[in-house]
Amino acid sequence: MNTTKRTEISTLGEFGLIDRLTNDIKAKDAHTVQGVGDDAAIIKFNEDEEVLVSTDMFMEGVHFDLTYFPLKHLGYKVVVANICDIYAMNGTPRQITVSLALSRKFCIEDIEELYSGMKLACEQYGVDIIGGDTTSSLTGLAISITAIGTAAKGSVVKRNGAKETDLICVTGNLGAAYMGLQLLEREKIATADKDMQPDFQGKEYILERQLKPEARKEVIEKLREENVKPTAMMDVSDGLSSELMHICKQSGVGCRIYEERIPIDYQTAIMAEELNLNVITCALNGGEDYELLFTVPIADHEKVAAMKDVRVIGHIVSDSMGLALITRDGVEMELKAQGWTQKREEE
Amino acid sequence: MNTTKRTEISTLGEFGLIDRLTNDIKAKDAHTVQGVGDDAAIIKFNEDEEVLVSTDMFMEGVHFDLTYFPLKHLGYKVVVANICDIYAMNGTPRQITVSLALSRKFCIEDIEELYSGMKLACEQYGVDIIGGDTTSSLTGLAISITAIGTAAKGSVVKRNGAKETDLICVTGNLGAAYMGLQLLEREKIATADKDMQPDFQGKEYILERQLKPEARKEVIEKLREENVKPTAMMDVSDGLSSELMHICKQSGVGCRIYEERIPIDYQTAIMAEELNLNVITCALNGGEDYELLFTVPIADHEKVAAMKDVRVIGHIVSDSMGLALITRDGVEMELKAQGWTQKREEE
Repeated sequence: MNTTKRTEISTLGEFGLIDRLTNDIKAKDAHTVQGVGDDAAIIKFNEDEEVLVSTDMFMEGVHFDLTYFPLKHLGYKVVVANICDIYAMNGTPRQITVSLALSRKFCIEDIEELYSGMKLACEQYGVDIIGGDTTSSLTGLAISITAIGTAAKGSVVKRNGAKETDLICVTGNLGAAYMGLQLLEREKIATADKDMQPDFQGKEYILERQLKPEARKEVIEKLREENVKPTAMMDVSDGLSSELMHICKQSGVGCRIYEERIPIDYQTAIMAEELNLNVITCALNGGEDYELLFTVPIADHEKVAAMKDVRVIGHIVSDSMGLALITRDGVEMELKAQGWTQKREEE
Repeated sequence: MNTTKRTEISTLGEFGLIDRLTNDIKAKDAHTVQGVGDDAAIIKFNEDEEVLVSTDMFMEGVHFDLTYFPLKHLGYKVVVANICDIYAMNGTPRQITVSLALSRKFCIEDIEELYSGMKLACEQYGVDIIGGDTTSSLTGLAISITAIGTAAKGSVVKRNGAKETDLICVTGNLGAAYMGLQLLEREKIATADKDMQPDFQGKEYILERQLKPEARKEVIEKLREENVKPTAMMDVSDGLSSELMHICKQSGVGCRIYEERIPIDYQTAIMAEELNLNVITCALNGGEDYELLFTVPIADHEKVAAMKDVRVIGHIVSDSMGLALITRDGVEMELKAQGWTQKREEE
């Protein structure tokens, strides 16, 4: 929270606050006809476009802890987290609406900080803020974002198209955001007496993954460029295991992924060791990675294998074979939404 | 909250809860391609349609008090409140997304109650629930709704088109929802000792206006039928004064409205008297009426004067004349967002 200058929201009122936050917003996307300022925003789509809508809610104390999460980063992150869902449908995010509920502890400068992060993310990804609602809350901050995107007719990728022999791919690396969170939580406790300063040297990457995640826009663009249309796709927000289960369930298939193929950053591995955590568990269940998980026909192997930031981690099998992780020593473990257990003998 | 049966949300988990709440939802609107169940919903629009997006957030303890507000009614109301904004643009609501943040005091049966009200409103107004987010909250219930609607090209009505000599019209009547709220608040205190039962006889209408408001769909349809296109329009959610100020400010005009023309229901008047409140103040500033406020060219006078549930309450004047209410005894009072004051002599 801002400690240098503090202007109470009541000095502006709801409409004054909205004006102040949004008066420098200029709609850039050609689909946006009119943004903030009326009962509803106005958008225009072409006949050959499909429109995608996704919404997320973020609650203080549940999704973020403001004792160590800077408001500007929070603004950036909630926008990225939301537009990831549009990319995960093979779409292009175009607009967002932003609703905020604020308790009295927040001043105008705080909300400007939060908005500056949201605006930065919008600029980064070419998205317009077209509307929202600002209201009060009895306790803490609640943020609700709705993202709208488009996809060319027939290009939308759902979760239900994965087929046997398809390759399972994941972008970037996994578990880093979770490790960043563990580190921040540890330092929050360690520095609670205010005498100690946290030492984050050598841990910049995992912190950034937690505090300023990015969406894999460039991978979506690369796939289009290379004419690779995934058969199923999701963003990894709840953890790889959980997302794989969604894809397999909705596609009516099973999967095999390989421990040695799961992409993990060096800092993630170091931090896991420091905290005595199994790094693969963290990568499978950590969440908040905002990477893309997708399946492609085996014929596209060469193309995806050559792509920057894409790793083939396994393949789709028949439904009856279930979901499993093959460990480095060749043991088959059943994948579960949280963690995994040794597969039973009879399976 | 449900007291007969209580199933903890943890027994289902987030995905189980979403399944249970949404498995009976069938998309009906032709624009909806795919609703709940993927990273984003998919919609399709025609080239000749403009798309409208509006969002609202409702917080427990700020917007509603669950000690007297039944969850089913709350679900109905939040949907109506949100789609009103689409009607107020002269559009037709098509879809909504629903995000909920829930504290531990809520069980599955509670959320089903809330959803049953939302589904009822959606059925009533022909709207599809196409997605949402369900998460936890440290305290209370937070609801965020985003409505999407359409309007034929060129038919959208904004706030900024009111012109001198235009007639100012309002639907239904004003202040009733506010009076209903006052009554509920009074009875909440009076019956806090559990021995007394509130007596709501003869007050059914004002209670209904607070607990189960409706959107003026049929007036929008009638206006279209009669070929009357308002020059400016808003829904009355914050009070007539406040909305009139928005229209006048954005249109660069002033207004005169007449006290004797402001539509007030009999029960609203009785209740105001009982509570020693000025009924006109309540009608001007009460809020939550969800009626439509609009301006039409004077040439449409006959048409609007003959319309059911529409009342002409004044007219638009030049900007320099300001905003004023003419009282029954001919005194000109300046309109303010909250209440009004005698116009200064020099004006």
